[in-house]
Amino acid sequence: LVIFLGSDKTVNPIKITETSLRDGHQSLIATRLRTEEILPILEKMDRVGYHALEVWGGATFDACLRFLNEDPWERLRKIRRKVKNTKLQMLLRGQNLLGYKHYADDVVDTFIKKSVENGIDIIRVFDALNDTRNLETSIKAIKESGAHCQCAISYTTSKVHTIEYYVKLSKKMEELGADSICIKDMAGILTPYSAYKLVKRLKEAVSVPIELHTHSTSGIASMTYLKAVEAGVDIIDTAISPFAEGTSQPATESMVVTLSEGERAPELNISLLNEISDYFKPIKEKYRESGILNPKVMDVEPNTLTYQVPGGMLSNLLSQLKGQGALDKYEEVLSEIPRVREDLGFPPLVTPLSQMVGTQAVFNVLTGERYRIVPKEIKEYVKGLYGMPPAPISDDIKQKIIGDEKVITQRPADLLEPEIGKHSKEIGDLATSMEDVLSYILFPQVAKKFFENRLNGKAENENEDSGETVHYITVTM
Amino acid sequence: LVIFLGSDKTVNPIKITETSLRDGHQSLIATRLRTEEILPILEKMDRVGYHALEVWGGATFDACLRFLNEDPWERLRKIRRKVKNTKLQMLLRGQNLLGYKHYADDVVDTFIKKSVENGIDIIRVFDALNDTRNLETSIKAIKESGAHCQCAISYTTSKVHTIEYYVKLSKKMEELGADSICIKDMAGILTPYSAYKLVKRLKEAVSVPIELHTHSTSGIASMTYLKAVEAGVDIIDTAISPFAEGTSQPATESMVVTLSEGERAPELNISLLNEISDYFKPIKEKYRESGILNPKVMDVEPNTLTYQVPGGMLSNLLSQLKGQGALDKYEEVLSEIPRVREDLGFPPLVTPLSQMVGTQAVFNVLTGERYRIVPKEIKEYVKGLYGMPPAPISDDIKQKIIGDEKVITQRPADLLEPEIGKHSKEIGDLATSMEDVLSYILFPQVAKKFFENRLNGKAENENEDSGETVHYITVTM
Ligand SMILES: [Co+2]
Ligand SMILES: [Co+2]
Repeated sequence: LVIFLGSDKTVNPIKITETSLRDGHQSLIATRLRTEEILPILEKMDRVGYHALEVWGGATFDACLRFLNEDPWERLRKIRRKVKNTKLQMLLRGQNLLGYKHYADDVVDTFIKKSVENGIDIIRVFDALNDTRNLETSIKAIKESGAHCQCAISYTTSKVHTIEYYVKLSKKMEELGADSICIKDMAGILTPYSAYKLVKRLKEAVSVPIELHTHSTSGIASMTYLKAVEAGVDIIDTAISPFAEGTSQPATESMVVTLSEGERAPELNISLLNEISDYFKPIKEKYRESGILNPKVMDVEPNTLTYQVPGGMLSNLLSQLKGQGALDKYEEVLSEIPRVREDLGFPPLVTPLSQMVGTQAVFNVLTGERYRIVPKEIKEYVKGLYGMPPAPISDDIKQKIIGDEKVITQRPADLLEPEIGKHSKEIGDLATSMEDVLSYILFPQVAKKFFENRLNGKAENENEDSGETVHYITVTM
Repeated sequence: LVIFLGSDKTVNPIKITETSLRDGHQSLIATRLRTEEILPILEKMDRVGYHALEVWGGATFDACLRFLNEDPWERLRKIRRKVKNTKLQMLLRGQNLLGYKHYADDVVDTFIKKSVENGIDIIRVFDALNDTRNLETSIKAIKESGAHCQCAISYTTSKVHTIEYYVKLSKKMEELGADSICIKDMAGILTPYSAYKLVKRLKEAVSVPIELHTHSTSGIASMTYLKAVEAGVDIIDTAISPFAEGTSQPATESMVVTLSEGERAPELNISLLNEISDYFKPIKEKYRESGILNPKVMDVEPNTLTYQVPGGMLSNLLSQLKGQGALDKYEEVLSEIPRVREDLGFPPLVTPLSQMVGTQAVFNVLTGERYRIVPKEIKEYVKGLYGMPPAPISDDIKQKIIGDEKVITQRPADLLEPEIGKHSKEIGDLATSMEDVLSYILFPQVAKKFFENRLNGKAENENEDSGETVHYITVTM
């Protein structure tokens, strides 16, 4: 094995974004890496030659406050101080920011500007429905802040999600100001040859760089990266091996060694990668022993591909049905899911839409009558409060779900009044900065508890891990 | 995602050998699958459309007798009875059969004929050193038995292991009668673009089908398969998902779905694959709960690629050095390994050679003088008793290791007298068939104990798992 490390002759070397400090630990150990575990290795990571380090956003913000008794803003500032050369990246859910509902524009604008002020260079922003209206405020704020604006496509498959659909979406994102575009495949369903075709077309259609983000869940991710690189993708997302594979990304070292023998050898320091891997191995062991690393996340789950329903949805379904003593309805619910999805205009099956579609399918089967019971979230979705569905919803389905209620046609956040002033007053002196106010707006209860602990001199990391999880579906009938 | 299942238009569909019943459980759960866990799913597996099911040989024979109180021959017969359409395949270590030393020709000949008589269709035979003289007796017996003779290359990397080396070796194998050739990459070090080049050249050089066998250990295996398929490989080895990935093979379903979108769509029944996966999932869970599935086998270990030393060797080394209180010598031993390997003519780092090279490297570093202490096995290796090293050993190294002792030039098994008669007498009435005699010759103590249990009416599966492991290196100084 001869390892060619990006020689002078390499044209267009593939770039690598390292995800271990965000998606890697979010996927494998429920976002539990502590700042003190992150800081000691950052100077080495800074010297590898990564395109970027994904270190913030996603579930990290919530996890810091909820489980680690850490201030997420302070984490970001500490990371920034150690990382002098490499770009820091965060993941943002568009108008949802890092929470689970739409926030008013003043919150979105301020949150983004504060993120950049505290150290972020690249903001990857996406909307679960790919409704670009839900990205507009974010894009504007990112551009004003001077950061790199990466717009991400929520990748999914359906009869409306054709290559043409993604070409049109990418062009729209470029028009809106995207500095790069990411194909974001949360479920790990983008197959290698589909990735090849998609990337080829997107490279022809837009002039900004294309990045690919996928997950190893279904056992195809490394092949998908390989074919995407062959098709000309500019950047791929990988995780250092102890936080790689399973439900996380392919391993950085494996992709770097593989691609080093190709025509677009990456310019990364492999010996530093070994040192970084050695650093994280005992940390992974610690989380394995404590049970936070569930060994099942390392299993390969190709049923995501064969059933065309995300793996996480399948296990959720099983436990929902088990809870109802209706395990025998599993196959029936499984075939109801694509029908509900079609009724609802083919939303990508990502959080929270996957849970919503799954729950509706369960109700449709268990009640024996489709849409007799509809969760509040589905009603709001049909009313347009999440944004525009990828395909129109038929009048018949609308009638069944919301009767004669109106569907909004404007941008959902246009309905929201400014929120900062009100919440700032509400939290009062417990918040000591605008960053605190933003934490409070996103996660009122956990942020408040964190502020109180801070005031009472309770040290960081003393927080008991409550095991509390976030529920997205309130089943009101 | 549209799944094309091998249409009439597909030219040269890729074939799939399913490894879960041999390599899959050998790699992930220490070869502990019981016959009673295998039998209920065989009829479904028989209908999938696999090229072959690898079900026997490798460590399964030893494990049946040693840990499961099962007769390996009886397992084979039971499997054969359920699998009426698909070919059954076994793995054989050439003149070592399924044991760890060279056996006389009468044993090799009889063992192979009995394997075929009991149900085997395809025998994959290899020699750790790629010395084809160690395959000659096996090939002759396989041909005489009417089975398919697949010769496997022990894949490794070194300055002598060039593509030309493998071309020459493959041609030699074809000349000797190979019906197909397997590139057998036990360590998972065959990189995707190297696989592409190697397969391309072998397809030009020989006319028999080429199969590829690798392991997911280092996180590149699925990519290696993909590039090999693009280069024209005929068959790849995969494992159904619950026994896939980690130190096992890529998942069957993941490869089938991926390749179904390419030009060589496999002709397999995906819905049966789902059912087979569902069958094995709770079995995997059982072994996970009992601790036999060590969660670490599912981790991706790319250091095999970056250090160019197999992952298993690295962990062995660490524990050897820890035992000696010499962990600080790790880096030194790590750089001694390639030197020892070069001194010894670049043996592939596979069992037992990897353990031998590793131990010698440890001795060389800990004693402060290279080759002051040499294990008996290394001496025998240098004397030619394992076969011919891939590259010549220098006179200087020979002198240091065996002094003026002679190096044999003939086929090692030429030195061995027929063994069946003697051992048959030795075991006497405890053996009730020639199959028993063969079991006794390969694993005298465990086979004898098994026969005694059988005589005393101790039922199958009552054997206590002793946790006993096989040791290859006897350190006599
Ligand atoms: Co992700
Ligand atoms: Co193997």
